[in-house]
Amino acid sequence: MTVKVESVDSLLKSTGREGEEVRVQGWIRTRRDSKAGLSFLAVHDGSCFDPIQVIAENHLHNYQSEVQRLTTGCAVDIVGTVKPSEGKGQSIELLASEVQVVGWVEDPDTYPMSPKRHTMEHLREHAHLRVRTNVSGAVARVRNCIAQAIHRFYHENGFNYVHTPILTASDCEGAGEMFRVSTLDMENLPRNEQGAIDYSKDFFGEESFLTVSGQLNVESYCLALSKVYTFGPTFRAENSNTTRHLAEFWMVEPEVAFADLADIADLSEQMLKYIFKAVLEERADDMAFFAQRIDKEAISRLENIIENDFARINYSDAIEILENCKEKFEFPVSWGIDLASEHERYLAEKHFKKPVIVLNYPKDIKAFYMRMNDDGKTVAAMDVLAPGIGEIIGGAQREERLEKLDERMDEMNIPKDHLDWYRDLRRYGTVPHAGFGLGFDRIVSYVTGMGNIRDVIPFPRTPKNISF
Amino acid sequence: MTVKVESVDSLLKSTGREGEEVRVQGWIRTRRDSKAGLSFLAVHDGSCFDPIQVIAENHLHNYQSEVQRLTTGCAVDIVGTVKPSEGKGQSIELLASEVQVVGWVEDPDTYPMSPKRHTMEHLREHAHLRVRTNVSGAVARVRNCIAQAIHRFYHENGFNYVHTPILTASDCEGAGEMFRVSTLDMENLPRNEQGAIDYSKDFFGEESFLTVSGQLNVESYCLALSKVYTFGPTFRAENSNTTRHLAEFWMVEPEVAFADLADIADLSEQMLKYIFKAVLEERADDMAFFAQRIDKEAISRLENIIENDFARINYSDAIEILENCKEKFEFPVSWGIDLASEHERYLAEKHFKKPVIVLNYPKDIKAFYMRMNDDGKTVAAMDVLAPGIGEIIGGAQREERLEKLDERMDEMNIPKDHLDWYRDLRRYGTVPHAGFGLGFDRIVSYVTGMGNIRDVIPFPRTPKNISF
Repeated sequence: MTVKVESVDSLLKSTGREGEEVRVQGWIRTRRDSKAGLSFLAVHDGSCFDPIQVIAENHLHNYQSEVQRLTTGCAVDIVGTVKPSEGKGQSIELLASEVQVVGWVEDPDTYPMSPKRHTMEHLREHAHLRVRTNVSGAVARVRNCIAQAIHRFYHENGFNYVHTPILTASDCEGAGEMFRVSTLDMENLPRNEQGAIDYSKDFFGEESFLTVSGQLNVESYCLALSKVYTFGPTFRAENSNTTRHLAEFWMVEPEVAFADLADIADLSEQMLKYIFKAVLEERADDMAFFAQRIDKEAISRLENIIENDFARINYSDAIEILENCKEKFEFPVSWGIDLASEHERYLAEKHFKKPVIVLNYPKDIKAFYMRMNDDGKTVAAMDVLAPGIGEIIGGAQREERLEKLDERMDEMNIPKDHLDWYRDLRRYGTVPHAGFGLGFDRIVSYVTGMGNIRDVIPFPRTPKNISF
Repeated sequence: MTVKVESVDSLLKSTGREGEEVRVQGWIRTRRDSKAGLSFLAVHDGSCFDPIQVIAENHLHNYQSEVQRLTTGCAVDIVGTVKPSEGKGQSIELLASEVQVVGWVEDPDTYPMSPKRHTMEHLREHAHLRVRTNVSGAVARVRNCIAQAIHRFYHENGFNYVHTPILTASDCEGAGEMFRVSTLDMENLPRNEQGAIDYSKDFFGEESFLTVSGQLNVESYCLALSKVYTFGPTFRAENSNTTRHLAEFWMVEPEVAFADLADIADLSEQMLKYIFKAVLEERADDMAFFAQRIDKEAISRLENIIENDFARINYSDAIEILENCKEKFEFPVSWGIDLASEHERYLAEKHFKKPVIVLNYPKDIKAFYMRMNDDGKTVAAMDVLAPGIGEIIGGAQREERLEKLDERMDEMNIPKDHLDWYRDLRRYGTVPHAGFGLGFDRIVSYVTGMGNIRDVIPFPRTPKNISF
C-alpha cells in the first residue's frame, strides 16, 4: 500500500475528492452486512467524532475470510476510492479496494467496549479502553481543545508558562490535606535521638509533600516577568467521594503584577470566553454529540456565557440578595458564611441568569495571602460562579504589604520558617499583584456536561482507586 | 495615571512613536546619575531581555526624595514621552513626566540580587529571586517559548494532548527508582495479620508511587486517538547529584498508532527542528545573550541542527565505528554495551558532526515493552544523539504482539498483575505503534547552553534539596 495515509478528519472535511484513491487507518466502530453482497464498515481513527463509511464488496479477496469477521474494535488499514455518500449524514464514503486487518479483537463477545450501551461505571472500570467509545473519545478531544486554547490564550496575551514544583516541603498552604512523599524504608524507619522519625534521612532531607497549588511559587516569577501562569497537576488527600472531587487534578493559575482584583476578574472573564469560543469553533462535532446525548444545554450554555457580560457583585450585596430572596436554602444565610453550592447556583442561575463574579469575601473564610481591604473585615478575593456548576474559578489580589501579611500569618498561626522566601517577595520591589485558579477538569466537566469529574480525566485518582 | 500601560517588549518593538505619552511598569535594573542633573533608569518588566531606558530629570517633584534613592529591584510605575535614544543599542527611550515608586528594596546593600556578578550557586540559593536577573529571566522566557512551541507543533500535526496520571500503583515500569506516596500515619503504621504494613488502609488502598513516565498510559489513548502526547512532570528517586539529573522534571512523550521506528525517528527530527526554529525566531534577544555570555555556540549549534538532515545508523554499525576509530574511551566498546556519554558524543560531535539517530539496540539493555526485531537480538529502540549533549531523546516501537510481550515480561520477571490493562491493548485491535520521550529540562539546558540543569527549572528538586 503506497497510497499516503490520511486522517478521517481531513478526509471528511475535504471537498472535490471524488474518484481519488485514499488510505485510512483506524478501528471498526460497526460493521453492517447488506444482502447485496457488500459490507458497510464505520471506521474511526480518533481524529474527529465521525467515522468514515467504507463499502467493502464481496469481490475483495479476503471478503469472506476476514471482512465478514470484522467486529467493533478491530484495527484496519484501508485503501479505497472516494465517492459521494448515498446515505444521509456524510457527504463522502470510500469504496474499498483493499481492507487489511491489522489487529483482531480477541473474543468479540466479551470485548468490554462492544457496540452496546455501557454504563459510565462500566466505562470507568475499563478506563484503558473507554476512549474508544463515542463519549470518551469526544471528551478527550474537547479536553485537548481546552488545554490548547488555554496555552494559546496566555501566550497571545504575553504570559510566560512557568513550571512550579510538584514536590514541596511547605505544608501550610492551607488549600487542603496533603500526600506525603518519601523514600524511607517503611518497615525500618530511621529515628532521631528523641525517638521521632528522622526525616533528615529522607530523600529531600525533610518532610515532603505533593503540592496543593503552584500559586505561592508562581508569585515569585510574577514579580519579575509580570505576567505568568502555571498549568500542572495538583493534589488533595481528601476523602471526598463526590462527582466533583479528584485526588489528582490539573489546575491553571495565572498571576499578574501591577494588577488588582478588578483586573483579574476581567482576565477570568476573557479567558473563559476565549476557551468556550475555541471549543464551539474547533469541536463543533463533539459538542453536537454532547448536546444530543449528554446535556441538551451543552452548547447554548456556552453561547450564553460568550454573549453576555459577567455580572460583578460584592459579597456583602450577594448576602443581601440571598437573605431577601424567597428561596428556601438548606444552609442559612448570614454575613460571614462561606457560600454553599446552593447559594452560588441561586445567584448565577436564578438571580443573574449568567456568570457572576462575587468580590471581597470576609477575611475569616479566606487564605492568609489574600489582600486585606481597608474595611479590615474583608479581603480582595473573588469567585466566579457559573450557571449549572457554581464556583469555577477562585482568585484574589495578594497581600503585597509585608507587615499586613505577617499580621495575617500570625493571626492564622501560619509558621513562617518555610515561607521566608515568600515574605522576601514583599521585601524587595513588592507590587500589587493578583491571580486565580481554574480547576481544569471542572471546566472540562462543565463544557461537556459530563456530570462526574471521573469521566473527564483519563485515569481518575480517588480514594481507594489508583487503577491503571 | 490614566495612560494605558504598555509592556517594554511592545514599546521597544514599535516604531514611529516619538512624542507619544506612554506608561510602563516594572523594576529598576540600574540607575545612573548624570552630573547634568538627571538620572538614567533601566526599567525591565520581564517581557523581553532588554530594559527600557528612562530619563528622569531633576525637576520631577520626587527627584531628590525618591528617584535618586532608587536601587536595583525597586518597583516603579512611569509615565513618559517617547524620544529617539541618544545612546547606542536602543532606538527609543522615555523622558519621564512621572516616576512613582511602587515598592522599595529593603536594605539595598544586602539585596541578594544586587547588580554585581553572582555565582550560579548564589542564584540557586535564591531561586525565588533569581528570575529577576538577566540570565534566569532569559532562561524563563526561552523555557516558555520551547513549551509553547511543543504544544503548537503537536496541535498543528493533529495530536491530542493527554494528561496521564502522576500517581500510579505500578512499580515495574523500570525507568528508575520511585517515590512512595502515602497518607498513612508514619508514627502509627497499620499492620495486617502477617505483621506487614497494611497498605489497604492507605489513601488509595494499595502501595502508591509517583510516575516515572506517562508512556504506558498514553499508549492506551494512542490506540483510539491515533496521535497523542503527554507533557507533564515525572519523577526519579535516584541519588544522582549531577548537572544532568533532577528528582522532578518535565517530559514530553508523543505516541503514534500505525507507526514504526522510522516514523518516530522522523517525528523526533521534525519536532526538534520546529522547536529550535521557534526559539531562534521568537527569542532572538535572549539567545543573543546566551551566545554572548554563556556559550558562544548557542545560536550556531541550533542553526546547524535546523539546516542539516539527522544521520541515522544502526546500533551495530555505530559499535563498528566506535571500535575502529582511534579515540581512547574510558569505557571499552563491544556489541551489547549501553553507549556511554563519551561514545554518544563521539558519534554526534566527531564522526557525524550533527545529530544522529541510533536505531535497533540490543534487547538486553532495553525495556520490556520495546518491539523485538526479527533477529531476536535487537529491539526497535532509538536514541537521538546531539552534538554537545549526547542523548536528548529515547524512543521505541512498542511490542504490539501479545505473545511476544508476554515472553519479554516473563524473561525480565515483570509481574503481570498491575499491567493486565496494558496487555489488553494487545488483545483488542492492536496496531504497530511507536513513541519517544524528550526530557524537557534537558532541551532547555541544551538550547540555552546552561551547563547545570538546576539552572533551567524554576525550583529544582534534587537529593536533600526541596527549598522554596
